[in-house]
Amino acid sequence: MSAKYTIGLDYGTNSVRALLVNVATGEEIASAVYNYPHGKAGIILDPKDPNLARQHPLDYLTGIEVTIPAVLKQASKRKGFSADQVIAIGVDTTGSTPLPVDAEGNALASHKEFAKNPAAMAWLWKDHTGHAEAEEITAVAGKLRPQYLEKCGGRYSSEWFWSKILHCARVAPKVFAAAYTWVECADFIPAVLTGTQHPDKLKRCICAAGHKAMANPAWGGYPDEKFLSALEPRLARVRKTLPEKTYDVADAAGTLTAEWARKLGLKAGIPVAVGAFDAHLGAIGSGIGPGTLVKIIGTSTCDIMVADMAKKLPNIPGLCGIVPESVLPNFYGLEAGQSAVGDIFNWFVNVIQPTGEKTGSHESLTQAAEKLKPGQSGLLALDWNNGNRTVLVDQRLTGLILGLTLHSTPGEIYRSLLEATAFGARTIVERLEEYNVKVQRVVNCGGIAAKNPLVMQIYADVLARPIMISRSSQTCALGSAVAAAVVAGKPAGGHANFAAATKAMTAVQKKIFQPIPKNVAIYNRLYDNYRALHDAFGINGTNKDISGVMKDLLTIRDQTRD
Amino acid sequence: MSAKYTIGLDYGTNSVRALLVNVATGEEIASAVYNYPHGKAGIILDPKDPNLARQHPLDYLTGIEVTIPAVLKQASKRKGFSADQVIAIGVDTTGSTPLPVDAEGNALASHKEFAKNPAAMAWLWKDHTGHAEAEEITAVAGKLRPQYLEKCGGRYSSEWFWSKILHCARVAPKVFAAAYTWVECADFIPAVLTGTQHPDKLKRCICAAGHKAMANPAWGGYPDEKFLSALEPRLARVRKTLPEKTYDVADAAGTLTAEWARKLGLKAGIPVAVGAFDAHLGAIGSGIGPGTLVKIIGTSTCDIMVADMAKKLPNIPGLCGIVPESVLPNFYGLEAGQSAVGDIFNWFVNVIQPTGEKTGSHESLTQAAEKLKPGQSGLLALDWNNGNRTVLVDQRLTGLILGLTLHSTPGEIYRSLLEATAFGARTIVERLEEYNVKVQRVVNCGGIAAKNPLVMQIYADVLARPIMISRSSQTCALGSAVAAAVVAGKPAGGHANFAAATKAMTAVQKKIFQPIPKNVAIYNRLYDNYRALHDAFGINGTNKDISGVMKDLLTIRDQTRD
Repeated sequence: MSAKYTIGLDYGTNSVRALLVNVATGEEIASAVYNYPHGKAGIILDPKDPNLARQHPLDYLTGIEVTIPAVLKQASKRKGFSADQVIAIGVDTTGSTPLPVDAEGNALASHKEFAKNPAAMAWLWKDHTGHAEAEEITAVAGKLRPQYLEKCGGRYSSEWFWSKILHCARVAPKVFAAAYTWVECADFIPAVLTGTQHPDKLKRCICAAGHKAMANPAWGGYPDEKFLSALEPRLARVRKTLPEKTYDVADAAGTLTAEWARKLGLKAGIPVAVGAFDAHLGAIGSGIGPGTLVKIIGTSTCDIMVADMAKKLPNIPGLCGIVPESVLPNFYGLEAGQSAVGDIFNWFVNVIQPTGEKTGSHESLTQAAEKLKPGQSGLLALDWNNGNRTVLVDQRLTGLILGLTLHSTPGEIYRSLLEATAFGARTIVERLEEYNVKVQRVVNCGGIAAKNPLVMQIYADVLARPIMISRSSQTCALGSAVAAAVVAGKPAGGHANFAAATKAMTAVQKKIFQPIPKNVAIYNRLYDNYRALHDAFGINGTNKDISGVMKDLLTIRDQTRD
Repeated sequence: MSAKYTIGLDYGTNSVRALLVNVATGEEIASAVYNYPHGKAGIILDPKDPNLARQHPLDYLTGIEVTIPAVLKQASKRKGFSADQVIAIGVDTTGSTPLPVDAEGNALASHKEFAKNPAAMAWLWKDHTGHAEAEEITAVAGKLRPQYLEKCGGRYSSEWFWSKILHCARVAPKVFAAAYTWVECADFIPAVLTGTQHPDKLKRCICAAGHKAMANPAWGGYPDEKFLSALEPRLARVRKTLPEKTYDVADAAGTLTAEWARKLGLKAGIPVAVGAFDAHLGAIGSGIGPGTLVKIIGTSTCDIMVADMAKKLPNIPGLCGIVPESVLPNFYGLEAGQSAVGDIFNWFVNVIQPTGEKTGSHESLTQAAEKLKPGQSGLLALDWNNGNRTVLVDQRLTGLILGLTLHSTPGEIYRSLLEATAFGARTIVERLEEYNVKVQRVVNCGGIAAKNPLVMQIYADVLARPIMISRSSQTCALGSAVAAAVVAGKPAGGHANFAAATKAMTAVQKKIFQPIPKNVAIYNRLYDNYRALHDAFGINGTNKDISGVMKDLLTIRDQTRD
C-alpha cells in the first residue's frame, strides 16, 4: 500500500502555512508559507488607535491557492508521490478572529462596498478596540449569568468574539447591519473549502465557541438571546444565526469541493476537518495527553492542558477557558496564555532597535543575555506590554521595567524581558496546580522554543522542572495534519483516534532542558518580587508594601557579583 | 581705569573649565576646557562594581596648567588686554569629592606607591561604594546624634564625605593608614594655588563641611570624636585633623604663589577665593537671592535656595542640606537635588542606543518627543536610575518605566524620561513650599537648560510656573568668577558684596518658558500617578493601592487621542 499524506493549513498572525505530512511516520514532506499582503506584516493597523488589528479575508483564500499547490509541487519531486495520496486536510487559525459575512456566508469584505472598510475585515485576536465592551460584558454577565464567567476566567476579554461584535455594532453600525452573521476564521476556512459556508450548513467548532463565545453544552450552547439583548438589542439578531450544536476536530466540516480540488490539484471529496485554534492543534502536534502542559510560544503564548471529563473539575479562576472537547474528544480542554511573549522581544528589537550591544538583533542580544547570571542585572520586568491574559484577564495592563541604572545594557534588558515571560508562565503553572491540575510534563513548541536554547533554559530554571521541546517546528500545522488523519479514518489510511495518531505522528526532541538548582534558587527570589509587582499593579485593593522590591533586587544583584 | 577680570575655575564630572570674565559687565571673554585623561570620560571605573567612580587628582592640576594659559592666550587677541588685569580666581568643584592627602597636604595619589590605587584617588560624588556605610552612619547618628540628621534630610548619603572615608577604612586599610587627612576637591584646588595645602594652614569651606560632612556651628563644627569613634575608632584620628572654623566664598583661601603665577602667566599675590561646590557657585552665577530657586541641570541636578538667617527656618525632611552661609553670607543655603538627570538621557542615548527613531541621537529623540502631547504615550518613569537624592535620600532605589506596550517608541520613552526628571523637580518644589520656603522664581542653568527648549517647556508645564534660563551657559564658572570679584574687593576693581556683584555680572535670558494651562492640567494627573509610584517604591510601609496607575495612564492616553 502506498504512503498516505494529510495537509495541515496553519493560519498565523502574519502568514498562512501549508504542511504536507506522512500519516504513518509524521515526516514533514513539504511546507510553504504565504505572507498576507495587506497592512503591515499582514495586519491592517490604524495609526490613531493602537488597539486596532484587522486582516483581509481575501489574504486567507489567496493563501490556500498559493501554499497547497506549492507543497504538492515540492513533494512531486519525490519518487512515487502523487497528489491523490493526500487523504484529508486539517485547519487551524488564530482566534478569536471573527469576520462578518453576508447571508450566503461570504465575507462582507468581498463586497466592493466594504472592500476597504476595516470593520468589515477579520477582527484579529489581538484587536483590542472592544476593551470597553469586554468590561461591559463582564459586568452584565456578572449580574445576569455568573456561570458564563466561571468558565472563562471570571472576566470576558477584548480579544474575544462578543467584545468585537458589540464594538462593531457601536462604532460601525452599517457594517454591523450588513452582516448576516459573524464567523470565526477557524470555521470560515473549512467551510469555504467544503462549500458549506452558507449559515444553514456551516459547522462551528466547540474550540472557538466554547473558549471565546461563552458557548457550553451546560447551558445549551451560545449565550442566550435575553442576555445578549441586555447588552445590546441588535445582538439578538446575531444570536438567531448561531446553532445549538458545535463540533470538535474529530468531525469533518465536509468534503473538498470539485472547484477547490481543481484549483489546488487535489482529489475532490477528501474530508476537511472541523477547524480549531492554532494552540489547540499545536497541543495535539506536540502530543498532548493527561498531565502534559503544552506551551505554544510564539508572538504570544497559549498554554494547553486536557483533563478527563470522567472526573469532576473545579472552576479555575483566571483560566480563559475550560471547554469540553475543545482539544481532544472526551477531555476538557483547558486554555491559558500570555498576551505577548515573542512580541515583547520583537518590540525591543524592532521598535526600540537598541544598538548599544553590537547589532541589536535577537542573536546579538541573546549572546549578551546568556553571559549574565540570573539576578545579575538587577532588572525585573512585567510581561504585560499587550495586557495580561492569564491569570488576571486584563488587557488594560501595561509593561514595566524596574531596576534600571545608568549602566543597564540592552542585553540586560533583553534578558529581563525573557525572564518576565518565564515568570508569567510560572504564574499559570502555579494557578493550575493550586486547583489540582498537576503539571507532570512540560512540552514547549513554536519558533522560540525551537530556536532559542537560552529562553528554554530560563524557563526550566524559573519553572523548576524539565522542559521538553516538540520535535516538529510546525506543531500547529502538524496538529492540523494529525486531525486530518483522524477525520480521514483508518480505512482510508489515516488513524482510528487521536491517541494512535499522535503516537505515530508526533514526538519530542532528545535534548531536554534540566533546571539548574543554583539558578532555581535565585529565580525563586526574583519570582517573589515579580509576584509582588504582579499583584500590586494587577489586583485591585492589594495594598501590598512594595518598597522592598528595588532593594531586594540590588541585594540579589550584589550577591551574584560576590 | 582699565577693565578688570576674574577667572572662574569650574571642576565638573568629566572636565575642568576656566572662564575669564569682565568684572564690570559679566561679559565672558574667553573659556577653555580640559577633559580629564584618566579612566572613561575622566572617571576611573571598576567593571565589577558599578558603584565605584574615582578621579585622578593629577588631572585636576594639569587642568589648571592647560586651561588658564589657554584663556589668557585667547584674551590676548583683544586690544589692550593684559594678564595683569586679572584680579582674582574663584574655584568650584563637584562634591562631595574627597581625596586622601599626606601630612604635607599633597595628594596620596602623587606618591608612586599609590599612583594607580583607586582608593588613593579622589572619590567622586557619584561613587556609591559606601552605601552600606551611609546606612550605618544614619543608624548611629539616629541613636547618638539625631540633630546631625535634621540638617541633612534625615539620612546620610553614600555620596558624602564620611561614607567614603569609612568605606576606605574598611576596604583599603593601607590607603586609609597612609592618609594624614581627607580634603574636599573644593578645598584642595584653592589650597594648592595659594600654597596653603598643609593641614595646619588649609582653609576648609562651610559649603562642603556643612552639606556633606555634618559640620555645623550649632555643635561646634564637624561631628565630634566620640560619635565618629562609635562608627569606627580609626576615624578619631581623621577628626583630629579637622579645624573648628570653616569659611565661605566671601573669604580668600590665600594668594596665588609665585610658582603658580609663573606657570599660568598671572600676577603673583592675587587672591584665590575659598572654594564651594559647583551648584552653589552656579546659583550665584544665576543671580540667586531670596525667593529664587536655581536649578543647575546637568548630569545630575542641584537645586539651591537661600533663606534669611534673621528668620527662623524649620528642618525640612529630605533636603540634603540646610547650612548657614554655604551659598551667600548671612543666608542659609538650602540644597536639594536629583541624583541623575542628563545622565538618564545620556544612558538611553549612549548605552541603549535606540535607533528605532532615526539616528537615536539626543536631537532626533527630542524631535520625536516634541511631536507628542503630554500623556499621549501612556508612559510614566521614575527618575531613579542613580538613586534618589531629594526627598527620599536613598541611593538603593532604581529607575522604572511603566506603561510599555508593543508600540512604545524610543521617542516616547525619551519623553517619559524627560518628564520623570520634571516630576522629580516638582517633588522638591512641593517639599520646600510645604515648609514655607516659597518659590517665587525659578532660574534654570546648565547645558540642558541652555540647549533643550522642550525640556524647559516640560518643566514649566509640570511645575506650573514660568521658567527662566540663566544668560550664561557657564554659570558655575561664572559664579566662581563672581566670588573672585567679591574676594578681590572694590578697591582692587572688584565688588563690595554679592548683591552688587551678581547685579553687575549675571542675568537671565529674554525668553521665558510659560506654563501652558492644558498641559498643566494633564501633568497634574500624571504627577499624581508619579507620586503614587514614588511613595509606593520609595517609602517603607506606604501600602498604597497602585492597581489604578496603569489604567489611569491608559485613560489619559486615550483622552489625548480624542
